[in-house]
Amino acid sequence: MKKKILVIPGDGIGPEVTTWGKAVLEKIAELFGHEFEFDEALMGHVAIEATGNPLPDETLKKAKQSDAILFGAVGHAKYDNDPSLKVRPEQGLLKIRKELGLYANLRPILLFDELLDASSIKPAILKGTDILFFRELTGDVYFGEKIRSEDTNTASDLMIYHRYEIERIAHKAFAAAMQRSKRLCSVDKANVLESSRLWRETVQRIAKEYPEVETEHMFIDNAAMQLIKDPKRFDVVLTANLFGDILTDEASQIAGSMGMLASASIGDGTGFFEPIHGSAHDIAGKDLANPLASILSVALMLEISFGLKKEAQLILTVIDQVLKEGFRTNDIASDATNPYQVLGTQEMGKLIL
Amino acid sequence: MKKKILVIPGDGIGPEVTTWGKAVLEKIAELFGHEFEFDEALMGHVAIEATGNPLPDETLKKAKQSDAILFGAVGHAKYDNDPSLKVRPEQGLLKIRKELGLYANLRPILLFDELLDASSIKPAILKGTDILFFRELTGDVYFGEKIRSEDTNTASDLMIYHRYEIERIAHKAFAAAMQRSKRLCSVDKANVLESSRLWRETVQRIAKEYPEVETEHMFIDNAAMQLIKDPKRFDVVLTANLFGDILTDEASQIAGSMGMLASASIGDGTGFFEPIHGSAHDIAGKDLANPLASILSVALMLEISFGLKKEAQLILTVIDQVLKEGFRTNDIASDATNPYQVLGTQEMGKLIL
Ligand SMILES: CC(C)[C@H](C(=O)O)[C@@H](O)C(=O)O
Ligand SMILES: CC(C)[C@H](C(=O)O)[C@@H](O)C(=O)O
Repeated sequence: MKKKILVIPGDGIGPEVTTWGKAVLEKIAELFGHEFEFDEALMGHVAIEATGNPLPDETLKKAKQSDAILFGAVGHAKYDNDPSLKVRPEQGLLKIRKELGLYANLRPILLFDELLDASSIKPAILKGTDILFFRELTGDVYFGEKIRSEDTNTASDLMIYHRYEIERIAHKAFAAAMQRSKRLCSVDKANVLESSRLWRETVQRIAKEYPEVETEHMFIDNAAMQLIKDPKRFDVVLTANLFGDILTDEASQIAGSMGMLASASIGDGTGFFEPIHGSAHDIAGKDLANPLASILSVALMLEISFGLKKEAQLILTVIDQVLKEGFRTNDIASDATNPYQVLGTQEMGKLIL
Repeated sequence: MKKKILVIPGDGIGPEVTTWGKAVLEKIAELFGHEFEFDEALMGHVAIEATGNPLPDETLKKAKQSDAILFGAVGHAKYDNDPSLKVRPEQGLLKIRKELGLYANLRPILLFDELLDASSIKPAILKGTDILFFRELTGDVYFGEKIRSEDTNTASDLMIYHRYEIERIAHKAFAAAMQRSKRLCSVDKANVLESSRLWRETVQRIAKEYPEVETEHMFIDNAAMQLIKDPKRFDVVLTANLFGDILTDEASQIAGSMGMLASASIGDGTGFFEPIHGSAHDIAGKDLANPLASILSVALMLEISFGLKKEAQLILTVIDQVLKEGFRTNDIASDATNPYQVLGTQEMGKLIL
């Protein structure tokens, strides 16, 4: 198979981890006789520094021409500390999501048995958990009009959904539920928000087209609680952009660490694959980042964008094996009772290869 | 001390639990020689059934004339299942919060040592956790303009903050931090939302007036994760209405159960005290609800609205004692290794008395 893959390392630990994601892609190509052609592009703070623009035209052009994108992370403390800055790294990420029509963000909560103890949650509560989040990614308060008024001393963001935006992601989520255990939980705040009421109505209507799927509706506050109390009750979770952002980060504790979770953003064209962790500037350049989320992003790319199931499975098997042999990065080595081999980013990357 | 207390039982398990909150208030009056005069009023689904209005004028009038309000819960599955209904129980709660100017919602995450095992989180992670949430309660996307357009097939809610709304709750939170361990974490989504950027700027400015307080800013997605990963890192948490709704429900798992958490809503006048749990129709009328959150709401009322610290402390001591003796309601009896005495609502209420 011949594919063009664009690598966008981004900021902070982004470059350190995507290096290993890319290396694994090269290895897979070698092992299975595929031809992956790589290109690289700028986004985020590094792009602002180089061009003044968090998403340079050049990057967008390359992105549209590629078959899949491997992304690292964007963000920088400078902007976090100064909310008045007008040009910000995250704008690059939001814009590329919108421009590529990446409306469905899939975040599987993959639980390696070996990591049951790495979580702050009790192993007995976690065991058997298998959740697939569908987070809407190009609508909601993320993309609604933003207004700052110095006259009235107010700032606002419009939380808005179009019916078709809800429909298309709902179909994707229900279709996935049909392939899994046929349970779907839609999360909203319909007891307060009008946009959530449209969300709920629409999901209720679409649910009728999937009569085999057992559909549940839950308020976001309750869902944030249930996810910790009893994660096994969830299978496919369908939710809006903002709620999905919050719930999936929270759910990373189920997998033991943010450093273990990958995500796939799909929609109209090119797929976009990234760890769910951020740029983590505090540990950048220190060889402390966990490269497994980027490597797992590669597995998602192989499976979802290229349909290469065997290749994806091999990656999962290797990671499982490495964990079984007791190798850990710092973020998943919290269980002091076990004599783990704690590795840096580089060593872990090499070991996987 | 002479006080007028309005009881608003509301829907679902509301009446069952406030019965015991009220009974504890009567007991405290008797023991300490206070005079508490009670009145009762309707809100929520029961008020809609009786008057067509989720917050009848009569209720609002009584509320304004009382010294404190003990509230149960509102909500009903009928409305949750039909998002198109225009008159809804929650409107009563939102309106009374607005009308009474209850802009600060205090949610202490109180951890009884005896309940360390009731949580899905590991006891070693929880032990020593002591968080006080300040949730803004009369602004944000809860109260911004709501628009449903059948023309464009959209629905929207305006997420909006005025600077003064952020300032007044920030001052309350910083003042509380000064009385506690002088650490404050403000939670927002300033990397995406304009309203959050105003939030962050404002909190940064006010932080300068409290130089002794160590102030941290965290994104909501990260906060939702850190709260489970390492709850002890938080002390005072200051956040907006929607984020506070989500985080405090999630944090209920730290305390072992929603059934153990009370909240105080304060602002310009009368204080409003309620469990953070909802109407829980599935267990209503079954003598299964935990009355302790309502009883803890009463402790907050005594301390915050009436300045009766000794009385509030007595309630905490009694609850602690009852838990030590091994009595539990169903929701906090999950640890199967211990031979608890599982009680119904009534028995637990009587035992506390
Ligand atoms: C960096 C930020 C804009 C982004 C988001 O909120 O979507 C991130 O948190 C994520 O979840 O991918
Ligand atoms: C019932 C609902 C409107 C309410 C809210 O979202 O504020 C509840 O969840 C709460 O936290 O008090």
